[in-house]
Amino acid sequence: MKTTALIMAGGRGERFWPKSRKNLPKQFLSLTGDGKTMIQFTVERILSLVAIEDIYIVTNHDYKDLVKEQLPDLPEENILCEPVGRNTAACIGLGAVHIQRKCKDACMIVLPSDHLIKYNAMFINTLKDACAIAEQEENLVTIGITPDYPEIGYGYIKFLPDEEKEHAYKVDRFVEKPSLEVAKEYLLTEEYLWNSGMFVWKISTILEMLKRLMPDTYQGLIKIKEAIGTEEEEMVLEREFYNFQSISIDYGVLEKSDNIYTLPGTFGWDDVGSWLAVERIRKTNEFGNVVSGNTITISTKNCVIEGTEKLIATVGIEDLIVVDTQDATLICAKDSANEIKKVLETLKNCNRDEYI
Amino acid sequence: MKTTALIMAGGRGERFWPKSRKNLPKQFLSLTGDGKTMIQFTVERILSLVAIEDIYIVTNHDYKDLVKEQLPDLPEENILCEPVGRNTAACIGLGAVHIQRKCKDACMIVLPSDHLIKYNAMFINTLKDACAIAEQEENLVTIGITPDYPEIGYGYIKFLPDEEKEHAYKVDRFVEKPSLEVAKEYLLTEEYLWNSGMFVWKISTILEMLKRLMPDTYQGLIKIKEAIGTEEEEMVLEREFYNFQSISIDYGVLEKSDNIYTLPGTFGWDDVGSWLAVERIRKTNEFGNVVSGNTITISTKNCVIEGTEKLIATVGIEDLIVVDTQDATLICAKDSANEIKKVLETLKNCNRDEYI
Repeated sequence: MKTTALIMAGGRGERFWPKSRKNLPKQFLSLTGDGKTMIQFTVERILSLVAIEDIYIVTNHDYKDLVKEQLPDLPEENILCEPVGRNTAACIGLGAVHIQRKCKDACMIVLPSDHLIKYNAMFINTLKDACAIAEQEENLVTIGITPDYPEIGYGYIKFLPDEEKEHAYKVDRFVEKPSLEVAKEYLLTEEYLWNSGMFVWKISTILEMLKRLMPDTYQGLIKIKEAIGTEEEEMVLEREFYNFQSISIDYGVLEKSDNIYTLPGTFGWDDVGSWLAVERIRKTNEFGNVVSGNTITISTKNCVIEGTEKLIATVGIEDLIVVDTQDATLICAKDSANEIKKVLETLKNCNRDEYI
Repeated sequence: MKTTALIMAGGRGERFWPKSRKNLPKQFLSLTGDGKTMIQFTVERILSLVAIEDIYIVTNHDYKDLVKEQLPDLPEENILCEPVGRNTAACIGLGAVHIQRKCKDACMIVLPSDHLIKYNAMFINTLKDACAIAEQEENLVTIGITPDYPEIGYGYIKFLPDEEKEHAYKVDRFVEKPSLEVAKEYLLTEEYLWNSGMFVWKISTILEMLKRLMPDTYQGLIKIKEAIGTEEEEMVLEREFYNFQSISIDYGVLEKSDNIYTLPGTFGWDDVGSWLAVERIRKTNEFGNVVSGNTITISTKNCVIEGTEKLIATVGIEDLIVVDTQDATLICAKDSANEIKKVLETLKNCNRDEYI
């Protein structure tokens, strides 16, 4: 069976401000220090498994040109633009009907566009295993990540260790972001994985599940499918999308199904959730700093300094994130990275949209 | 007797980098937040005591235009340019011969151009007292500052509490920057003042002292005086200045004289020695921050943030100095302010003179 991929690239993340902006979100940024953007890595990583013409990007009209620019080899018709964000169920459904129109049935790998993976070969092997399981019956496969530590920012997947199938485990249930105490317990039980947001299934399976569990959305998707290529395509897409429930595939489908398997991934996954991640994914120097741009650091330790052409001089600082851009500079204590959103709130309240 | 003033403005301070530069040193900067520069305040402060045409500025050719621009009412001929810096003895001697040429004898107030004073009326009264003492016999008067705390960055003046004369005290000796321990002892004895670098004497007195104690310099100064207004003025000035010993008036004259009095000043003096001073001289907000420019501060405490039009956003930081300029941004821990010079050393070593 043909293997296809759907890459979700409509996000407008704020956590990489001031480098990420409304018109240049994280998936289009280079954060690793080697020039390639997150979405470019995401596509490149799977090319040994999926042909470029079988890769689909779901984004929105604001980012269509960025996708074309950053992925010049991707057929333009594979860039699908949502008229409005309606969470992952609608997004995946839209991808599914587009792929189905072209190849009837196929294996569909669903990936976020802004995660990093260290061990590509292991990742590809995990995806292959996932495809093998997904192609059997009506199995839904979610890629779990073996936790390193009790993270409280992710959802978890509880699996059944006794129900193993070709390295995958039957999923018992999905659980929301836990407290630190609960997260610690999860790790001790050895029955929980992080929910990475990567899924594998057949087109026919996911559409059947949507039909069964989200029939309104399914009806809308069918109308969209029938309009593809006609003069009414845009109009129908817009009308149906605005009517869709905004619900994640986890809530809308996975939690209500029982043919779900999880494959534990140990391929060095990183969701690059904030500037703090830059330290993990980039090389630190002998003083624990990650430095780029026109920079002089004196007595500076364990800092992330992301400069431009403008000179940034740091003296005697520690555990800070410094990000310079053309029109704005952020200076943030590492342990306050989650407060960067307050800067954006302040900017919004003051109608200073040019910085958002 | 006429009262004149000599303001020394040739310094090339590095401690206010990146705002201060080789071509814009501290005395020409506005650091108080109300638009006026240090040298403008210095002149304005004494106008009730000294007429503008009796105020002389010693600087160098690089800064002559800045002086003209910032002090448009000052007669251009009162701007004296040293061909090369030769410390305060030569600087004061040059001022003295210029003033003497115009008015034979006068009282001469010598002031640095980059200090701040909070209580102007008290300062003027101190200067008046100093002039009264200086006009008697061959007295040299140095303005001492009553110490608030055991500062180790200043020289001290030891005075003789029993030899008082019109609120002034006979100076016993000058002492160099002490260790903290020694500075603490000084405060306990109640016989030490800070050496502020402000002096008052008659032109005739200081020239007589130079003649006696620095005869070579004196001879050179006389040659310079004779050349003033002639075609050879520049040439003679240059030749003599390069030959001058580089020595301070404290070492060259004061320490070797015994007719020295000190007047303890309690007029809120601040030498504005580094970015840390900005906190003392400017208003802090409710979070202890001194903020200017286009700035958003979230969970930010006790910081000095000097911005421009470019947005600076700070999150979760404390006790930092952030200074933004057109081409460089400094981020410095308050307790590392004395290491800012290392940035300048690095820039020099890398031949990046554009930032110096």
